[in-house]
Amino acid sequence: MDKKIRIESDSLGEVKVPSERYWGAQTQRSLENFKIGTEKMPEPLIKALAIVKLAAARVNMKQGSIDNRVGDAICTAAQEVIDGKFNNQFPLVVWQTGSGTQTNMNVNEVISNRAIEILGGDLGSKSPVHPNDHVNCGQSSNDTFPTAMHIAVAEQINRLLIPNLEELYKALNNKVHEFKDIIKVGRTHLQDATPLTLGQEFSGYAVQIKKGIERVKSTLSNVYELAQGGTAVGTGINTKKGFAEDFAKEVAKITNFPFISAKNKFEALAANDALVELSGALNTVAVSLMKIANDIRLLGSGPRCGIGEIMLPENEPGSSIMPGKVNPTQCEAVTMVCAQVMGNHVAVTIGGSNGHFELNVFKPVIIYNVLQSIRLLADASLNFAEKCVVDIKANEERIKDLLNQSLMLVTILNTHIGYDNAAKIAKLAYKENITLKEAAAKLQLLTEEEFERIVKPEEMVG
Amino acid sequence: MDKKIRIESDSLGEVKVPSERYWGAQTQRSLENFKIGTEKMPEPLIKALAIVKLAAARVNMKQGSIDNRVGDAICTAAQEVIDGKFNNQFPLVVWQTGSGTQTNMNVNEVISNRAIEILGGDLGSKSPVHPNDHVNCGQSSNDTFPTAMHIAVAEQINRLLIPNLEELYKALNNKVHEFKDIIKVGRTHLQDATPLTLGQEFSGYAVQIKKGIERVKSTLSNVYELAQGGTAVGTGINTKKGFAEDFAKEVAKITNFPFISAKNKFEALAANDALVELSGALNTVAVSLMKIANDIRLLGSGPRCGIGEIMLPENEPGSSIMPGKVNPTQCEAVTMVCAQVMGNHVAVTIGGSNGHFELNVFKPVIIYNVLQSIRLLADASLNFAEKCVVDIKANEERIKDLLNQSLMLVTILNTHIGYDNAAKIAKLAYKENITLKEAAAKLQLLTEEEFERIVKPEEMVG
Amino acid sequence: MDKKIRIESDSLGEVKVPSERYWGAQTQRSLENFKIGTEKMPEPLIKALAIVKLAAARVNMKQGSIDNRVGDAICTAAQEVIDGKFNNQFPLVVWQTGSGTQTNMNVNEVISNRAIEILGGDLGSKSPVHPNDHVNCGQSSNDTFPTAMHIAVAEQINRLLIPNLEELYKALNNKVHEFKDIIKVGRTHLQDATPLTLGQEFSGYAVQIKKGIERVKSTLSNVYELAQGGTAVGTGINTKKGFAEDFAKEVAKITNFPFISAKNKFEALAANDALVELSGALNTVAVSLMKIANDIRLLGSGPRCGIGEIMLPENEPGSSIMPGKVNPTQCEAVTMVCAQVMGNHVAVTIGGSNGHFELNVFKPVIIYNVLQSIRLLADASLNFAEKCVVDIKANEERIKDLLNQSLMLVTILNTHIGYDNAAKIAKLAYKENITLKEAAAKLQLLTEEEFERIVKPEEMVG
Amino acid sequence: MDKKIRIESDSLGEVKVPSERYWGAQTQRSLENFKIGTEKMPEPLIKALAIVKLAAARVNMKQGSIDNRVGDAICTAAQEVIDGKFNNQFPLVVWQTGSGTQTNMNVNEVISNRAIEILGGDLGSKSPVHPNDHVNCGQSSNDTFPTAMHIAVAEQINRLLIPNLEELYKALNNKVHEFKDIIKVGRTHLQDATPLTLGQEFSGYAVQIKKGIERVKSTLSNVYELAQGGTAVGTGINTKKGFAEDFAKEVAKITNFPFISAKNKFEALAANDALVELSGALNTVAVSLMKIANDIRLLGSGPRCGIGEIMLPENEPGSSIMPGKVNPTQCEAVTMVCAQVMGNHVAVTIGGSNGHFELNVFKPVIIYNVLQSIRLLADASLNFAEKCVVDIKANEERIKDLLNQSLMLVTILNTHIGYDNAAKIAKLAYKENITLKEAAAKLQLLTEEEFERIVKPEEMVG
Repeated sequence: MDKKIRIESDSLGEVKVPSERYWGAQTQRSLENFKIGTEKMPEPLIKALAIVKLAAARVNMKQGSIDNRVGDAICTAAQEVIDGKFNNQFPLVVWQTGSGTQTNMNVNEVISNRAIEILGGDLGSKSPVHPNDHVNCGQSSNDTFPTAMHIAVAEQINRLLIPNLEELYKALNNKVHEFKDIIKVGRTHLQDATPLTLGQEFSGYAVQIKKGIERVKSTLSNVYELAQGGTAVGTGINTKKGFAEDFAKEVAKITNFPFISAKNKFEALAANDALVELSGALNTVAVSLMKIANDIRLLGSGPRCGIGEIMLPENEPGSSIMPGKVNPTQCEAVTMVCAQVMGNHVAVTIGGSNGHFELNVFKPVIIYNVLQSIRLLADASLNFAEKCVVDIKANEERIKDLLNQSLMLVTILNTHIGYDNAAKIAKLAYKENITLKEAAAKLQLLTEEEFERIVKPEEMVG
Repeated sequence: MDKKIRIESDSLGEVKVPSERYWGAQTQRSLENFKIGTEKMPEPLIKALAIVKLAAARVNMKQGSIDNRVGDAICTAAQEVIDGKFNNQFPLVVWQTGSGTQTNMNVNEVISNRAIEILGGDLGSKSPVHPNDHVNCGQSSNDTFPTAMHIAVAEQINRLLIPNLEELYKALNNKVHEFKDIIKVGRTHLQDATPLTLGQEFSGYAVQIKKGIERVKSTLSNVYELAQGGTAVGTGINTKKGFAEDFAKEVAKITNFPFISAKNKFEALAANDALVELSGALNTVAVSLMKIANDIRLLGSGPRCGIGEIMLPENEPGSSIMPGKVNPTQCEAVTMVCAQVMGNHVAVTIGGSNGHFELNVFKPVIIYNVLQSIRLLADASLNFAEKCVVDIKANEERIKDLLNQSLMLVTILNTHIGYDNAAKIAKLAYKENITLKEAAAKLQLLTEEEFERIVKPEEMVG
Repeated sequence: MDKKIRIESDSLGEVKVPSERYWGAQTQRSLENFKIGTEKMPEPLIKALAIVKLAAARVNMKQGSIDNRVGDAICTAAQEVIDGKFNNQFPLVVWQTGSGTQTNMNVNEVISNRAIEILGGDLGSKSPVHPNDHVNCGQSSNDTFPTAMHIAVAEQINRLLIPNLEELYKALNNKVHEFKDIIKVGRTHLQDATPLTLGQEFSGYAVQIKKGIERVKSTLSNVYELAQGGTAVGTGINTKKGFAEDFAKEVAKITNFPFISAKNKFEALAANDALVELSGALNTVAVSLMKIANDIRLLGSGPRCGIGEIMLPENEPGSSIMPGKVNPTQCEAVTMVCAQVMGNHVAVTIGGSNGHFELNVFKPVIIYNVLQSIRLLADASLNFAEKCVVDIKANEERIKDLLNQSLMLVTILNTHIGYDNAAKIAKLAYKENITLKEAAAKLQLLTEEEFERIVKPEEMVG
Repeated sequence: MDKKIRIESDSLGEVKVPSERYWGAQTQRSLENFKIGTEKMPEPLIKALAIVKLAAARVNMKQGSIDNRVGDAICTAAQEVIDGKFNNQFPLVVWQTGSGTQTNMNVNEVISNRAIEILGGDLGSKSPVHPNDHVNCGQSSNDTFPTAMHIAVAEQINRLLIPNLEELYKALNNKVHEFKDIIKVGRTHLQDATPLTLGQEFSGYAVQIKKGIERVKSTLSNVYELAQGGTAVGTGINTKKGFAEDFAKEVAKITNFPFISAKNKFEALAANDALVELSGALNTVAVSLMKIANDIRLLGSGPRCGIGEIMLPENEPGSSIMPGKVNPTQCEAVTMVCAQVMGNHVAVTIGGSNGHFELNVFKPVIIYNVLQSIRLLADASLNFAEKCVVDIKANEERIKDLLNQSLMLVTILNTHIGYDNAAKIAKLAYKENITLKEAAAKLQLLTEEEFERIVKPEEMVG
């Protein structure tokens, strides 16, 4: 192959880097040393690292740690990375060093080379903008990477997951109103039970999602604490006084989220508990969604031989010859996402529990799983809302049929004809496979008119 | 309190032991040092440790390591423990030292004191039978405890789980035959699909259990390898040549299972992979049972407003007024057991992965979970077979009704009247909520007789 | 066997109950139908159900649903159950119906029989206090059981877990102060890194526990919402207006916790998300504890061939011949507990996700796991604090030795003799296995005095 | 946008497909309906589906179900897909219908269009090669997709995972021999224990991997059973007699693996237990690898302030100024992979347990996780072998130093000078921080010569 390369060097010797690439020796070594899987470091993390570099450069200029010409070029380059202009320059996989050092260096190298380019220098020259001395100034991978993890998560939660869960909540809540007068048989233990409205049933789902939003939000306060300023082990060696606090303010300004400097930097480097906690909230959301999607496909089962109380939108041909066979494909996608999020949560838990001393080195696997869970829950929620929930129709005829067949309505007769007579009616209806009304008439306990006057499901739904 | 105590001592000083107890100083210390939870070391493990002591005493006598008078008394005492005569002498909790040393010492102390008693000595005197020098002779907790773990598991698998799974298999398989001619609507995606027999449906369940039995059995070969003889770190320091092999033979003789001495004792102490593997098989059985129990309660849902194709036995009153409301309580117990086994498997996985150097010190939590999973799966399988499966009845009328309503039967008409005409029939039937037969007649595509001659579900089930 | 029995009957026929037992037919049937495992319904849940009965009786009297003579007897009997006087009357296992109905009936039966006894009636007569009509008045298992789950959890969290975590926090925090001036080598990637104080290291642990307490507390607001009043399916059929709200107030009064009536009863019966959420917080606490206990045993490894920077208390003889071999048994118990809690969390997650329609029927397995996790974390935290953390000693000599050997101190020389010279010193020290001071002198870059003046670890710890 | 499109139609109406694409309406609809995440259906699965199409076409030609011109074109096109020539034509995500129908149709559409192209027709014309009638002839997604899952897994296990695990085994086993004479201190509970050789320590690791290979292999027999021929619900409706068996033989011929037709097709569609079982074996391998990689990084900790008994290869600069700081980055990548595999296993377990009736609809999430686990374990094992294990060096000087310092060697003196005297030596050595030899001399119990003659660690390693 005829590809052009440039030679870079580090303390271990020379490294060949494709000359059109903005990354440098450390990225290249990682590429060669970690041929594991295909999972790249997620884009929101890369973007968050660029936010770190932007904020750090601003504070470093203010504190006089780097001069403005270099600092401004770093800011410009960092902003370009944030804007996604260099997405193809971050080739490293998740399965690398557990501190994320190599991805931090990847970002340092790309930003420094782009800044060099802006200032008219040569890629790979490390001059006038050095990846370590300037872009990484006052930082260590050990504080930079967990800081970026928190920024990425906060961004994705606030800009993606919560809005999408709110869309799903709205869609479900609209159904609460739309279905508020449709009385149907209730089911406990999968057995027929006393009635409720279809709106009430959906209100349970809506509340699950609403509480899910609150659950996720309530874990954000720990995510807003940033490790930056702890440097190598949490003591802040090689940072200037005030760096940590000024940095957090800059990030808050850039992102519009209330980031602050973590009160205890030792915990912030050595543990990733804030993300384990958040993952627990995501797990709870997955549990809720699993219940909802499962119920909806059961309610829509049929068209003839299932429960069939609701009709799901037909998004794709189910069966070319079989009208009415609408596979609940959106429910299936949602429940698969839920299974994934529950599994991811275990991976995060295991990673979170295995730190040693001053640093947890399962950071990449933690952030990979957390960001995947957020993305999947967010996308699935919106998709489910738009492609399924909004178009759910009640099959009122079927609902009414089942309700009328239900034997549980007999309970209302207790106070009118006594428990024993009510039970007689139910037993006859069950035995002869007739309706309660028919049984009541047959037993001459109630006329049809009396039955209809008394047995009003609408008075049994609260 | 006025309870009598005796004073024992160890290298840390004096310890007060209730004088009626057979345990000694180390057990007593553990009781005081580990006030955590209520979960006692499981009985099958205690019994297995006593088997270890019995087998070791025999080999030690043979090798001349202990004299026969002492050895015989140990054997008698160990057999009494195996027989359950001292079950109340093992008060230690699971949450103790991770090597199980304290429970090993508990067994040593009880057996030595009982042997002393047999030989006419005083409890706590350590003479003429010393818990360490005689009962624990040639052993270390580090090889004794994992050996007992394997013995306990092999016993419980062979004597409890597999026979009970076989009972469940038989019960399901009987239903395969009983239901072999009952044709019913199939369901995929919870939607009506082409027919199969109820027997075929149950054959899937039966095969799942049959394969589950094979899965569990296939993991036993590693369980039959015993760590004994590795002593402290796997080198076998302080054991005589041939001890390990002779010991394994004795255990095989005592238990009638094909135990052998582990080829690599370093692995046998430092890892508990054999039990992680076994737990994976138990997890698969739980997955199978979850599917089966879930299907069965869905098939039995109703009595009026669910699927209602089968009727479950009524083991307890469901609803006093509502005949036919039979809650699938056995299915519920089974699926809860499955959830527990899946959770236990994660605990075992985490424990198994966290060993350090020459010893894994999550042994108690691993054996606690594995034995709980075995017991729960075994009991639940038998209970499910006896209290549910054997008494499942097919609701043939309901099954026939649903089958006749099913639109999926139309597929068979393709080859007779062409795809387009078949589809017309299905669409009309769906639209007007009539049967396929009615629709065919209405469209004058087939007479009722022709329809009945052609549309034979019994020819669609393979 | 000659045991006395009494005959009770229900809609399925006669049941023989041991005559000395307070339980009745439904409990007895469950005992016979669910021979699965040995895990009894946890005591805190039984106590919480008795609180439900007490509160319900008070509201029922106030609302005129039961008369005061019956109501007062129920209150007395319920209080006795709360006080633990009937602990041996609740024999049912966890693996029963998934709504917990049988345990609800067990409590109804025991309280009604005890109330009957108080009022001079005959056990089993159901008169003058009926288990359903009076003790269960205005209730359904479907709202009673989840209500009791929340009460039990709130009690155990507030009275057991949080106080014990606070003890652990205090113990760790005391070490933060005790060790604040002990400078030691930091470690990242398990490799020597720049120094910090031992107090700083422990401050990370202390903060993890402090945040753990906050995490658990933050999930309680959903636990304080009670399902009671939803009855069978959430509509509140068969309850009087105001029952739900008055009931919650009574429970708040009895327990002193801020319970309120759940806003949406459909969610409160059909989902157990609040406990899945709480379990996520417990899981995070387990992750924190795993890290802390693991670090502490690594720091205490040795006595000669490990890290050995701290000395753990010797609670039991480690090795009779080997002084200084102090096995970190408390750490081992803690980390095993953590593995269990992580596994339990998965069981809870699976149970929580598998509800159907108006009722989740994995309630017993959920509450069993949540209460076990709480108890284990609580006990382990207190035990760890008392039996380990408070008596941890710093091995200051060893710490100083290691610090002096550390090559990472060289970083401070950069600003004095330049990066290149500093690196030369480090390389020579590493190559010749000498100290930095010796290397500096050998290279004539710094005198010993200069070295000591400049290389002050105390200025490197922030 | 000006992109060219072609109009296709299905029963729901028209669909616009980019005209350069080989996929058709169903793929396009899925793209639009499932905007969830970025995870594409894994390539090995696509390839396996093409193998299914190739084998099916051959059998269909043989059975006369499709004519040879069409069949040959399908075979050519399928082979091209197998060869990776159309990798960019499979854009669908994992989070789609749970039967994988849409990906099955994607493959049908691409192969039919490519076959049409080969035969000179127009893309999208469905003539002369129809995606359903010809490419999918005799098949249903419900049997095709699980068949492809098994083929993909068998391929990846046999061609990727097992060879790579064997490489790791070889690398570890070479170390067993290389290190067979290096005697070192053992460690149990992280505390100094009796000695063993470094080779023995590595032999435990090697055996773990060897057994891991066997574990994975032992689960393949169920993977070799193919669902094909079950069609929609397991009855084989619409297949010809012999199709299933002939198909399995063709696949065996194409792949060289011993595939057979599943004995029970109902189980093969409704459950994915074979892959849950396999995932359990992968989980066990992850547990083993976690232990090994963790031990290796602990053994390599230092360079000065850790254990430091081995030296890991320096693959990338650790610290520019700190020689000898070699971060165990390969161990970190491996342990992160293990955490992922354990999490994936939970996702697979949950997916596997949630099937309904005749079809499990968590197939895509199951295969996604299983294939990811296989790939990650395979890549990580090889990478770990090549980039870490082969270049591990023993630090013999350090090992000897620690061994000499170890107090555990005193145990050998018991039989020479008695237990009490031996203990005196150990206690003095510990108290005064001197060696055992020095303590023995000081106590005048043994001369240095006597000590050296007796205390030979090489006689303590078995």
